[in-house]
Amino acid sequence: MALNVGVYGGSGYAGAELVRLLLGHPKVNAMGVASRGYAGQAIGEVYPQLATGEKFVAPEEIDAGGLDVAFVAYGHGESAETVEALLEAGVGLVVDLSADFRLPDVGMYEEWYGPHPAPGLLEEALYGLPEVFGTKPGTRILANPGCYPTAAILALAPVVRRVDGIRSIIVNALSGVSGAGARPSVKTHFVSVNESAGAYGAPNHRHTPEIETMLRRVGETPPVTFVPHLIPISRGELETIVVDMDDLPGAEDVLGWYAEDYGDSAFVEARKEYPHVAHVANTNRCRLSAAVDERAGKLLLFSALDNLLKGASGAAVQNMNLALGYAEDLGLEHLK
Amino acid sequence: MALNVGVYGGSGYAGAELVRLLLGHPKVNAMGVASRGYAGQAIGEVYPQLATGEKFVAPEEIDAGGLDVAFVAYGHGESAETVEALLEAGVGLVVDLSADFRLPDVGMYEEWYGPHPAPGLLEEALYGLPEVFGTKPGTRILANPGCYPTAAILALAPVVRRVDGIRSIIVNALSGVSGAGARPSVKTHFVSVNESAGAYGAPNHRHTPEIETMLRRVGETPPVTFVPHLIPISRGELETIVVDMDDLPGAEDVLGWYAEDYGDSAFVEARKEYPHVAHVANTNRCRLSAAVDERAGKLLLFSALDNLLKGASGAAVQNMNLALGYAEDLGLEHLK
Amino acid sequence: MALNVGVYGGSGYAGAELVRLLLGHPKVNAMGVASRGYAGQAIGEVYPQLATGEKFVAPEEIDAGGLDVAFVAYGHGESAETVEALLEAGVGLVVDLSADFRLPDVGMYEEWYGPHPAPGLLEEALYGLPEVFGTKPGTRILANPGCYPTAAILALAPVVRRVDGIRSIIVNALSGVSGAGARPSVKTHFVSVNESAGAYGAPNHRHTPEIETMLRRVGETPPVTFVPHLIPISRGELETIVVDMDDLPGAEDVLGWYAEDYGDSAFVEARKEYPHVAHVANTNRCRLSAAVDERAGKLLLFSALDNLLKGASGAAVQNMNLALGYAEDLGLEHLK
Amino acid sequence: MALNVGVYGGSGYAGAELVRLLLGHPKVNAMGVASRGYAGQAIGEVYPQLATGEKFVAPEEIDAGGLDVAFVAYGHGESAETVEALLEAGVGLVVDLSADFRLPDVGMYEEWYGPHPAPGLLEEALYGLPEVFGTKPGTRILANPGCYPTAAILALAPVVRRVDGIRSIIVNALSGVSGAGARPSVKTHFVSVNESAGAYGAPNHRHTPEIETMLRRVGETPPVTFVPHLIPISRGELETIVVDMDDLPGAEDVLGWYAEDYGDSAFVEARKEYPHVAHVANTNRCRLSAAVDERAGKLLLFSALDNLLKGASGAAVQNMNLALGYAEDLGLEHLK
Repeated sequence: MALNVGVYGGSGYAGAELVRLLLGHPKVNAMGVASRGYAGQAIGEVYPQLATGEKFVAPEEIDAGGLDVAFVAYGHGESAETVEALLEAGVGLVVDLSADFRLPDVGMYEEWYGPHPAPGLLEEALYGLPEVFGTKPGTRILANPGCYPTAAILALAPVVRRVDGIRSIIVNALSGVSGAGARPSVKTHFVSVNESAGAYGAPNHRHTPEIETMLRRVGETPPVTFVPHLIPISRGELETIVVDMDDLPGAEDVLGWYAEDYGDSAFVEARKEYPHVAHVANTNRCRLSAAVDERAGKLLLFSALDNLLKGASGAAVQNMNLALGYAEDLGLEHLK
Repeated sequence: MALNVGVYGGSGYAGAELVRLLLGHPKVNAMGVASRGYAGQAIGEVYPQLATGEKFVAPEEIDAGGLDVAFVAYGHGESAETVEALLEAGVGLVVDLSADFRLPDVGMYEEWYGPHPAPGLLEEALYGLPEVFGTKPGTRILANPGCYPTAAILALAPVVRRVDGIRSIIVNALSGVSGAGARPSVKTHFVSVNESAGAYGAPNHRHTPEIETMLRRVGETPPVTFVPHLIPISRGELETIVVDMDDLPGAEDVLGWYAEDYGDSAFVEARKEYPHVAHVANTNRCRLSAAVDERAGKLLLFSALDNLLKGASGAAVQNMNLALGYAEDLGLEHLK
Repeated sequence: MALNVGVYGGSGYAGAELVRLLLGHPKVNAMGVASRGYAGQAIGEVYPQLATGEKFVAPEEIDAGGLDVAFVAYGHGESAETVEALLEAGVGLVVDLSADFRLPDVGMYEEWYGPHPAPGLLEEALYGLPEVFGTKPGTRILANPGCYPTAAILALAPVVRRVDGIRSIIVNALSGVSGAGARPSVKTHFVSVNESAGAYGAPNHRHTPEIETMLRRVGETPPVTFVPHLIPISRGELETIVVDMDDLPGAEDVLGWYAEDYGDSAFVEARKEYPHVAHVANTNRCRLSAAVDERAGKLLLFSALDNLLKGASGAAVQNMNLALGYAEDLGLEHLK
Repeated sequence: MALNVGVYGGSGYAGAELVRLLLGHPKVNAMGVASRGYAGQAIGEVYPQLATGEKFVAPEEIDAGGLDVAFVAYGHGESAETVEALLEAGVGLVVDLSADFRLPDVGMYEEWYGPHPAPGLLEEALYGLPEVFGTKPGTRILANPGCYPTAAILALAPVVRRVDGIRSIIVNALSGVSGAGARPSVKTHFVSVNESAGAYGAPNHRHTPEIETMLRRVGETPPVTFVPHLIPISRGELETIVVDMDDLPGAEDVLGWYAEDYGDSAFVEARKEYPHVAHVANTNRCRLSAAVDERAGKLLLFSALDNLLKGASGAAVQNMNLALGYAEDLGLEHLK
């Protein structure tokens, strides 16, 4: 089957990365890339690193009825309506990269994000972190996880699943600037970011409830303290997680749990050495490690990924592959 | 009084910064800069950003007997002997930038660093963080604090002093590469560091006991979890500190405590906005902030400084100023 | 005499740097900082690295009649009217950081920049590159040079002055991103600039006629090819200049000419080693070097400076100092 | 045919990139990676971004007799002997990434590099820039071009081929730090490179005769002035080339020549927009552009590539593909 694919919101960084991956995907036959702001402009002019002659089109120009798969990369709160319309037009699979379908509970969504435009679809959506939550036949809506939650949940789920009495979880995250989006602002100006680093969005960053909710599907989880920082790199993310509990496992135990849970995974792996962002940048990998602070009685977990790949577009393609029954890494072989 | 000053170990990054500050210090009359590796070479060739015609000399070439003040910037374990010899030669004040005099207890020093070459001098040394521990007339040895402990203690001391029942303290630190020293290595190669970030030295970094010991002089303190990370900036340091306790103060309370404790300080200040490294780079300031994660019941503290200035050479000059009765900021006015 | 100073357009990078320098200048008694966009906001909130409690004011809020010196850092074409009004209000000295008074010829100005709002003042303005053009008693308008022309003219003037028959001059320039201004744009987004480099504005960058015109005051000069590039640094500028001529001097000859012309200068110096941006960043220095490509028969000149200091605000203060009869480096001692 | 491949000198940056490409190449069946310094260590420990469990071996451990293809990535002057031994052992194709076979003339080689260890093989080697010099059936030695010459020759050959009377060629190059090699040194220390930029190796960089010699195969070429600079990026290269001639073509003419010469090429293309390093980083592309400085009568050419891919290992795999009759882009499809 040769796929006819639509990308809505293709002009952000995640969208551009998605276009690059889909251009090289062996099952993708035709692709329309919609951007409200750039409709009519050549993709290769807006993103000169993309070697394609195609142009951005207006969303209306894509014949939704003819799509096999759609990816929606709009902002939070702007995505759900498009997803709903696409499903109504008969698109078989929608992968949504916004937060609109990540929180399964309307009340929780509205507390953190505001009114939800299509609450009736929440229950149907599958949270697309297959290494932890598997796949579900017949899925129509895949909620692509947030980049920070992906790194946090992959590191924490094997622990939460096996350990009782966790008292506190503190996630300290470092993120590259592509995570802040492509829209120019004082905060993303080169001179603001370069030779600097700073915390932002703490202590109530919107990825916090996503981390908690998903971990609670796996085991008992206390409220999570989440503190993201912006550092002067373009892409990549590193989380250092400190867990407080009564019965400390050894670092080797945790590495063993990771091997058990992710041994068959194409993209998640653990090593004794602490992961650096450069070890996973430009790949679809998440790399994990663990250590124990015996003096202070704390478990330390480390998790690194590329926010635009395993944290967004690489995961979106991986999710599409699994939903359509392809190999998990189809079209992503060079990102392992 | 015009000072005759000696710098031992002037060819590292902290040494070079110290030379720059002392070249512009109004009380410094003459200066000898010793470097074993670079003796005979022009300082301005080794550090082309230093506009001086002077040369590095061998340590023996400095007439120690004629010095009013000496700064020792050797590595840990290599410093104490030189300090002892300088005092015996009659130098009135030695500011030591190594760790050799930071831990007041020989046993603790030897556990973390190995044999101490001059344990008899430990008791005499003053830990040079004047904003917390004040000054002491007649000091001959000033132990210049570590860069990470400076940031951590300045943020935590006002809290530890006032709050009981602190259960845990987690210090997550980001450091520029100058903190790793001037010696070339795979770890400091541009290609290793750039577009990356990673934790190192955790969970048993040597600055941990320094933070704990000094905080315990101020109040009850649990074991500290300390996780430093290297990020791709040249200079500067940011600490995000998470404190777990029963009775959470408000962020405003903590900002008020900072104002009380540091209101008269030339170089330490708190703001409601979280500090970024760029706010303090190339200054002798330490900038603090505080927030409360009410959901998880945690206090967040933020502390930023320039590791080569307030974290090393700026503090060393500040310490010299105070020990000699000068204004704290003499020669440092442009770094406020 | 204690100066009352006004800064118009204080919210760009050059303006912020100027405010920092003037805050530490020993002759400055009072300062008003005007910004249309930020009036009413604390300077220290907009530029957190500035440790001042002052607020930006609207231009009208400054009593121009009471000013001894005014600095105007508006955009090109927006500056001249303000300069004219300030002179009419009786301000004794105006240092203009825009291009409005750099080209002495109205026709040439209008060809490159558009209509000039105050052509009658052009003749009176002094081009403020004192190392080449000296000072003039009674100057009311100082045209602060462009950053690229400063680096180019300082490197080329000693050659053009002494050598006939120069056939071509090619100026290849690398600039930090602060040179592109503080306004956020796709071009200055961290992700656009980081891990990249590109030429821009060539072959008709507006600094070209400024370089040519000023060099022709010194000697015969062919049309200049000027190709600037943006590289991922915040501040600093490096020019590599290739000169084609019949009778090639030796590199030592050129270094000798630099010593002759700039030997007494506080801020311009030549070294045999090629200058790097880091050698001059955060200083008011311009550092020069020279080499000869004997195979191809070309003279190579190298020139580095900090675009915000010697290329803008440091030069502006230096110009003020000279115009008021102070030492050239007053308040700039730490930037030598 | 499934290839048995050997990589000699696999521990430098180009070697590591080569290993990554060969691991994903569909025709490569088995691979031995030799490194004198790292023999016995896991490749994935030395280069953690490579997701392979293989170890480096000593060169002697590879059975050269069983190899179909060998890549030699040793330093200049160290490579030729290994190439000779591999050919004697019966390896059908050796791709040499050093400079040892790039200059066809022994005298010229020895003038720039010193004694050549296997001058008898020089004549046989093919200079591996297929877009300009095509392929040759039966080639046993492929001299992989230097990164700077690749960018320069691709930009200049179409001009030199068509234009007479070129008076001068000035190549101004910017390079990422991986071009300086993986060996730690003061020059490649993060703190030396970051927030800086500087020329090096001019005016007699060893890539100069390679550029001239190869261009002279295409047309009349004057001595080339070549000035490389190190800038703070990890990978990528940009050349701005200024050509002086009597009859200036238009920019559109030059773009047309590029289209004629490279229209069928998988990896070389021209655009009206000037190329930035980010447009080609992590690809095997070389991107070109052209402009005319009519005031000064100069042609400007711009050429960008990734020094580790099109400038080294990507080109090496492309060369292997062509020599073995595969599609030019086999295994490199994701790098177009």
